[in-house]
Amino acid sequence: MASSGDGRVLDDAEVEGLDRWWRAANYLAVGQIYLMGDDPLLTRPLAAESTKPRLLGHWGTTPGLNLLWAHANRCVRERDLEAMFVTGPGHGGPAIVASTWLEGTWSDVYPDVTRDAAGMGKLFRQFSFPGGIPSHVAADVPGSIHEGGELGYSLAHAHGAAFDDPDLVVFCVVGDGEAETGPLQASWQSTAFVDAARDGAVLPVLHLNGWKIANPTTLARLSDQDLVAHLGGRGYAPVVVEGPLEGETSADVHRRLAAALDDCLDGIAAIQARARGRTRAGADDAEVTDAADVPRWPLLVLRTPKGWTGPQEVDGSRVEGTWRAHQVPISEVRGDEDARRQLEAWMRSYRPEELFTEDGVPQQDLLDMVPPRGRRMSDDPRTNGGSVSRPLRLTDFRRHAVEVREPGGSVHSPTTVLGDWLAEVARDNGTTFRLFGPDEVASNRLQAVVEAVGRAWAVRGDAEDDRMRPSGRVMEVLSEHLLQGWLEGYLLTGRHGVLTSYEAFIHIVDSMVNQHAKWLKVTSQLPWRDPLPSLNYLLSSHVWRQDHNGFSHQDPGFLDHVANKKAEIARIYLPPDANTLLSTMDHCLRSRHYINVVVAGKQMVHDYLPVQEAVEHCARGLGIWDWASTDEGEEPDVVIASAGDVPTLEALAAVDLVRTHLPELKVRFVNVVDLMRLQSDREHPHGLSDAEFDTVFTHDRPVVFAFHGYPSLVHRLTYKRTNHASFHVRGFIEEGTTTTPFDMVSSNETDRFRLAVDVIDHVPGLVPRYAALRQRLLDARRRAREFAYLHGEDPPEISGWRWPHGGVHHPMPGGRDGAPLAAAADDAGDRPG
Amino acid sequence: MASSGDGRVLDDAEVEGLDRWWRAANYLAVGQIYLMGDDPLLTRPLAAESTKPRLLGHWGTTPGLNLLWAHANRCVRERDLEAMFVTGPGHGGPAIVASTWLEGTWSDVYPDVTRDAAGMGKLFRQFSFPGGIPSHVAADVPGSIHEGGELGYSLAHAHGAAFDDPDLVVFCVVGDGEAETGPLQASWQSTAFVDAARDGAVLPVLHLNGWKIANPTTLARLSDQDLVAHLGGRGYAPVVVEGPLEGETSADVHRRLAAALDDCLDGIAAIQARARGRTRAGADDAEVTDAADVPRWPLLVLRTPKGWTGPQEVDGSRVEGTWRAHQVPISEVRGDEDARRQLEAWMRSYRPEELFTEDGVPQQDLLDMVPPRGRRMSDDPRTNGGSVSRPLRLTDFRRHAVEVREPGGSVHSPTTVLGDWLAEVARDNGTTFRLFGPDEVASNRLQAVVEAVGRAWAVRGDAEDDRMRPSGRVMEVLSEHLLQGWLEGYLLTGRHGVLTSYEAFIHIVDSMVNQHAKWLKVTSQLPWRDPLPSLNYLLSSHVWRQDHNGFSHQDPGFLDHVANKKAEIARIYLPPDANTLLSTMDHCLRSRHYINVVVAGKQMVHDYLPVQEAVEHCARGLGIWDWASTDEGEEPDVVIASAGDVPTLEALAAVDLVRTHLPELKVRFVNVVDLMRLQSDREHPHGLSDAEFDTVFTHDRPVVFAFHGYPSLVHRLTYKRTNHASFHVRGFIEEGTTTTPFDMVSSNETDRFRLAVDVIDHVPGLVPRYAALRQRLLDARRRAREFAYLHGEDPPEISGWRWPHGGVHHPMPGGRDGAPLAAAADDAGDRPG
Repeated sequence: MASSGDGRVLDDAEVEGLDRWWRAANYLAVGQIYLMGDDPLLTRPLAAESTKPRLLGHWGTTPGLNLLWAHANRCVRERDLEAMFVTGPGHGGPAIVASTWLEGTWSDVYPDVTRDAAGMGKLFRQFSFPGGIPSHVAADVPGSIHEGGELGYSLAHAHGAAFDDPDLVVFCVVGDGEAETGPLQASWQSTAFVDAARDGAVLPVLHLNGWKIANPTTLARLSDQDLVAHLGGRGYAPVVVEGPLEGETSADVHRRLAAALDDCLDGIAAIQARARGRTRAGADDAEVTDAADVPRWPLLVLRTPKGWTGPQEVDGSRVEGTWRAHQVPISEVRGDEDARRQLEAWMRSYRPEELFTEDGVPQQDLLDMVPPRGRRMSDDPRTNGGSVSRPLRLTDFRRHAVEVREPGGSVHSPTTVLGDWLAEVARDNGTTFRLFGPDEVASNRLQAVVEAVGRAWAVRGDAEDDRMRPSGRVMEVLSEHLLQGWLEGYLLTGRHGVLTSYEAFIHIVDSMVNQHAKWLKVTSQLPWRDPLPSLNYLLSSHVWRQDHNGFSHQDPGFLDHVANKKAEIARIYLPPDANTLLSTMDHCLRSRHYINVVVAGKQMVHDYLPVQEAVEHCARGLGIWDWASTDEGEEPDVVIASAGDVPTLEALAAVDLVRTHLPELKVRFVNVVDLMRLQSDREHPHGLSDAEFDTVFTHDRPVVFAFHGYPSLVHRLTYKRTNHASFHVRGFIEEGTTTTPFDMVSSNETDRFRLAVDVIDHVPGLVPRYAALRQRLLDARRRAREFAYLHGEDPPEISGWRWPHGGVHHPMPGGRDGAPLAAAADDAGDRPG
Repeated sequence: MASSGDGRVLDDAEVEGLDRWWRAANYLAVGQIYLMGDDPLLTRPLAAESTKPRLLGHWGTTPGLNLLWAHANRCVRERDLEAMFVTGPGHGGPAIVASTWLEGTWSDVYPDVTRDAAGMGKLFRQFSFPGGIPSHVAADVPGSIHEGGELGYSLAHAHGAAFDDPDLVVFCVVGDGEAETGPLQASWQSTAFVDAARDGAVLPVLHLNGWKIANPTTLARLSDQDLVAHLGGRGYAPVVVEGPLEGETSADVHRRLAAALDDCLDGIAAIQARARGRTRAGADDAEVTDAADVPRWPLLVLRTPKGWTGPQEVDGSRVEGTWRAHQVPISEVRGDEDARRQLEAWMRSYRPEELFTEDGVPQQDLLDMVPPRGRRMSDDPRTNGGSVSRPLRLTDFRRHAVEVREPGGSVHSPTTVLGDWLAEVARDNGTTFRLFGPDEVASNRLQAVVEAVGRAWAVRGDAEDDRMRPSGRVMEVLSEHLLQGWLEGYLLTGRHGVLTSYEAFIHIVDSMVNQHAKWLKVTSQLPWRDPLPSLNYLLSSHVWRQDHNGFSHQDPGFLDHVANKKAEIARIYLPPDANTLLSTMDHCLRSRHYINVVVAGKQMVHDYLPVQEAVEHCARGLGIWDWASTDEGEEPDVVIASAGDVPTLEALAAVDLVRTHLPELKVRFVNVVDLMRLQSDREHPHGLSDAEFDTVFTHDRPVVFAFHGYPSLVHRLTYKRTNHASFHVRGFIEEGTTTTPFDMVSSNETDRFRLAVDVIDHVPGLVPRYAALRQRLLDARRRAREFAYLHGEDPPEISGWRWPHGGVHHPMPGGRDGAPLAAAADDAGDRPG
């Protein structure tokens, strides 16, 4: 970053230039909100039909955003910054669109919207108009990585963008409405994770315009002293600019704002120079142990009136500087002549004739303020992250595969196995990959990644800290919102990452996932936006293995949430063992523009597939496991299917029970890794055709399906399939507590005994023949639970059960050891007729 | 609140008493985590089989919670407080269970767990044990309104509990891990909404023990100076207590903590006395205009070592005061003799023989510290909110009903109509009802409530503030998390409320809804917990009418989320007009222990049902609208169904098209208000029996269903129904932007023309006969959209369309005005054969 004219006071021409840009942008913003565009320069008195019939937009935040863009732009030019502008109050779309057009970028991206009167007319008309562009700073706006619709994520996105990009400065405008949200407030913690040596900088601008839609904001009512204490205590060095004060003109505000911005950017430069000097001196991976070494990052607080320069008063009520300026300050301009005259006077107050040529081209002095290509905030290539993204360097995961001599013959913790490979990924992609988790990375058995690349921590350290340093690459903070926001910002600027979380609590970011899914959907339809690295979730400590924390930690509904997203975006994977998890994650890290949800346990589970088979199984997405089936290619009597690690264990144990006690039954075992394979290929790109589906799941045989999540999801994905009426799905039915693993599955009717009973119940003709066996299965289940209630752990024949059925037998009361229970049932004369 | 012994220093006996309680609670906590309970007093050397085989619990936070409970209890006794204890770090279950048992409340509620050695044994065994109690401060714990599993909501719950309860003091422990979450950070704003005169007080205790599971916490690494500035700037008066300092014993910490607590409670008393004096003096509804009048609420920051009094070191690593103390500091105590000896030494370090009699009864001095019944934090009746809850006084909503002379003959904004009645509800229930919304109450047309009872605002006011005062009862802050947390706290203590929000953004609280649903489910199974007032959502500005804000504001998936909850808890209502909305909300406000989700528009919609018919329709939940049907009691050719206001409009317009152009077709029109009626009565208490369902939806006729949300939800609810294969559901398919209302529905293939085409496509035999009509319907749809793209608004025949088909006709190109298009099709010789 070039050094600044520290302490320099702007001269009058500079101030006038800033003001002219501001006026131009304000004019263009009002035009977008109000005008049809037939006479954008107001060469004639404003006619009714030149105004839009439906006024959809937000004025209130717009002049403040225009002001900040103009000033940020001055800094970009003077300091030759590589800068990005993140607009927290994204409803101020007209502002960002205006400056982007002034910079020429809008016309670069949308050549029909030229930088002249004709283009200005189109610019006005397209805004919030059918077939045009949205009212917010949506994906359609070049230079934007942040729509801001929901409010709350700007600062997290800004930091995500800045990580590992030392030359970047992100101007991040935080609205004071937005600042009330939890996610935004959590984001103030971000500085504790910024490595001044290796990361870029974020300059937050807390824009206090005092009001939301109808209410004041809590922060705006704090005194400057309280505000500075509040944000300063959190680790910032806040600078407050308020204006216009009594008797001031906008020129005074320009002067003070420019000086404050220079101070902030000088402060950033000083922090970075110090840290980078230290790094060059070799003090690289040291923890920060001295509080004095913790940087106080600059932060600008800007107090300006909401809707500044807009109408002072409408219909006798004050508008400028109040909540009434939030949206469209003057309505009914079509039908009401007086209102239209007021609008016209407002627009003319910017003196457009001084700002644009008769042809509607910005005057040369404005054009001179536009930074060169590649330095404009509207065309920074990072903001089209897909265009700058490089694929990850991925070592062959097969080298980390576990050896599988026979299916079920050994056990591993899938996430531990994955962790060793992910550690390599993290090490080999030292500036383009990070792992994010809410204090659960170690708990989720991914400690190897921590050991390889450390945890990020740029504030005071402690001797007991486990591998925490500014350059650490595992990001842990107890805010899923912040993690998600960071990761999104990182992906949106072309880098890669994985977010690992307890399954139940990923719901915390449901709404953020919605917004990102919408961003992916819209950008996939914009030819100039390149596909982004995928958003990857690794959900461990899942619903079935939260026996430790209990019911509050048990919820598999995120799968349902993601399944509602556009089919071309949503992917859900349920690898049943370590090797399938490796293969799945490798696939996800190579993919683009998806939301990949991978659910995998951290507890020991059986290894089923040697790595090559695992790869093939994952490529197919679902498949028949011959070694667990007894149909030998014929039409089976029953299909037992599973998706998810624990359900697969129970389903295989059920197969074992059936093979032992109902040996004459032809069983087909199907495992599903890629859940969307269940859907039709008409509904989802991963879907099986109906013919393929029928080949696997038969036309009419009962399918007993053990599912990881809520059973309704499988029904929803398969209800149009030929054999859907024969699907009997077991899964989580909201029963759970702190208990044993078997008690969890049996409370939810998804245990091996229940599944075996389901086979008896649904294969025609078995119920009367095997009533005794059925009862003994239920007795066995009851006994297993009683054992747990007595001893506090599952009986060894449950917890130690392995495929293939080995030395430890199922606790089938009444069954002779080793003797098939079906025979016992027959013995008892249980067969009717 | 009684006045305190201001400045008084505790004498040695008092300190010793506090320490003894603390030691007793710590002993009981460790016993719960580790012991089977056969020898709870350790009369013998600790045997392997006396320890639990699976160690599930959290030690780290526990001694701090025990310390705070002991000290809060002293204040309760000395000041005769009505107090509640909210445990943010809810994983510290062993602590709260311990003190609740010491107070005798545990045995009151669970008589088999007596306050003696036998009961202590059961207490130990039941913890985190199959068939026992969860590891967290779950609903099973008397005195708890807050499980704390997810972390983040303690302070919001505490404030919700304190609203309108002037005699209550809530001690709210906020963990420093929890304090990193967004929702918790948003909750610091709560004081801006506390009326010192009419509300109770919350004393937040920010407990910094420095570590989470594996990471330090960001707040713990701030200096005291920064912490005080940060929280002080936000409006608190923080007091920091750290201990034990070098060379100190626990007695020193007790002394300083007691003094700090006294200071805090004195501060609260002073704030309240001042405000209440002012109120008595008649300065009742004044805005706070002087910043000096804004109270600085006390806040205690407590720094103590994580796992204090636990093992110093295990296997060569420091444990006390580090993240290693988080969970179970010594594992493998069954198998490892040394580990077991260390555990035993740890437990004996509390000298249980001094604390309990040989019979395991707490010594008399401990019993003497227990406040009288009704004053114990463990038995405050508010914490069993259902037991103290009174029904709302509800005026007859029928008086606010709109007159409906003929279906569709007039239009109203449903939420505006509702607002007038809700204003009465708010006025008539001045201390037991509040309306919560994220700055959208006016936007959602509920302004009448604001006008009736004002908005809460206890900080600096402004002349332009719209009815904001400390006593206001509409709660608006731009944090759905905070609103949801407040409302939950308010409901959990027996009061009533409604949360209104934009539909898309209620997803922000998905995870909080999960936790509340779990609380409702568990408490419904605890006979001593009484049913709570329902959690009511009014979702307006819904998916179909966010043409203003665009795609980011369009998401109906909250319905899917809630439909995953236990059937006995989840209710979803989609009233199609003003009168049905009134009836629905009346029902919801009378109900208990549900989560009621009501989706209703704020825009003008047709009035369909006179109020008595509306009441009957809502009671049935779904029904045939004869006036819109042409089947006259016979088996129809097609069923056209709808759920939701906009889909009902489009479905009725489709009926109109069909009646006009396919007059020979027998159409049945069905409207669904109570979505769960679609489910089977085997699945949901509101479900229709299969026979009833078939009577309405027929056995085999095509059902063209226009749905408010994602189509899959209707399929999921109906897939077991006889006629499910004939259900053709239209709804939101993730298409949308800033556009016109008709463009929204047609983008999502849910418009009147598409529905009419669906009728042609699915009634057997119509496609060949009506190919021309079909094409003209599609042309009409295209033209309507083209009109919008040209003019920026929907064509008048769309936007002005009313049932019954009146003066304005559908824009059917090629159709002769007024002439049935079916005839035109016939004319064209379109009928084959």
